[in-house]
Amino acid sequence: MSVTDELLAGNAAYAARFSGPLPLPPAKHVAVLACMDARINVYGVLGLQEGEAHVVRNAGGVATDDAIRSLAISQRLLGTEEIVLIHHTDCGMLTFTDDGFKKSIQDEVGIKPPWAAEAFDDLEDDVRQSIARIRNSPFVPKKDSVRGFVFDVATGKLAEVS
Amino acid sequence: MSVTDELLAGNAAYAARFSGPLPLPPAKHVAVLACMDARINVYGVLGLQEGEAHVVRNAGGVATDDAIRSLAISQRLLGTEEIVLIHHTDCGMLTFTDDGFKKSIQDEVGIKPPWAAEAFDDLEDDVRQSIARIRNSPFVPKKDSVRGFVFDVATGKLAEVS
Repeated sequence: MSVTDELLAGNAAYAARFSGPLPLPPAKHVAVLACMDARINVYGVLGLQEGEAHVVRNAGGVATDDAIRSLAISQRLLGTEEIVLIHHTDCGMLTFTDDGFKKSIQDEVGIKPPWAAEAFDDLEDDVRQSIARIRNSPFVPKKDSVRGFVFDVATGKLAEVS
Repeated sequence: MSVTDELLAGNAAYAARFSGPLPLPPAKHVAVLACMDARINVYGVLGLQEGEAHVVRNAGGVATDDAIRSLAISQRLLGTEEIVLIHHTDCGMLTFTDDGFKKSIQDEVGIKPPWAAEAFDDLEDDVRQSIARIRNSPFVPKKDSVRGFVFDVATGKLAEVS
């Protein structure tokens, strides 16, 4: 059995105790942008229930153009007003460089990715970089509450980046 | 109290029962790409535990270049091999068009977003579009198991797109 099939069995168990549907707009009017890291269960980490928050995730939890696209849709069409950014300790993005990663792909397949890999060497600086990108974006209208945190994978705690 | 402060109280409760750290590479060697929709608690929907799967999310669960970036890092640096795509019923992306959304932003702030909004009018077709983008990408090496699903927000069930 593939892992995907195993997850489908997990879904059957979930659906058996599921109650829906909930409304489309997030009940808590908040959007979370977090790293894709497997150890960050966003709903668990923040005590969220289904239906309460948009959750955007990518490698690093970086405010890329695509994350800005998602946040713009979240705020403009679905009424979210606060943004919570989550990076984390022991992040894979600290272990390589954009140049090295892209060179390794180019060496293997002959094509250099046209995108930035978005690696970083300082967690808190990259949280600040993502906050600055959001604050600087003309497409995200609500910026009164854009706060960034580092999730500690050893303790489960969020520490705010000032 | 802001919603963000409320979520931080939720985090304190989570951390109090937290046990870590877990290893960095996802234990189940799988990456999930899902819509940011608030009603999709990916860990719940798939019966996942912390540490088991990368979770990439954006507006629509679309295989954008940024999602491809995340999947490339997931497979090449952190050993994932299967990809699970999740779109869902009652998706906000079905309610607008790229042109209309971008025009509304241009009318308000004077600048048209340089990115596609990635709206779509058929759920299953867009799942197939995302699968095709991944299969066509030279940057994602492992494509033996790329499967797409529609999550039903009324029943909690995943239906595979063929």
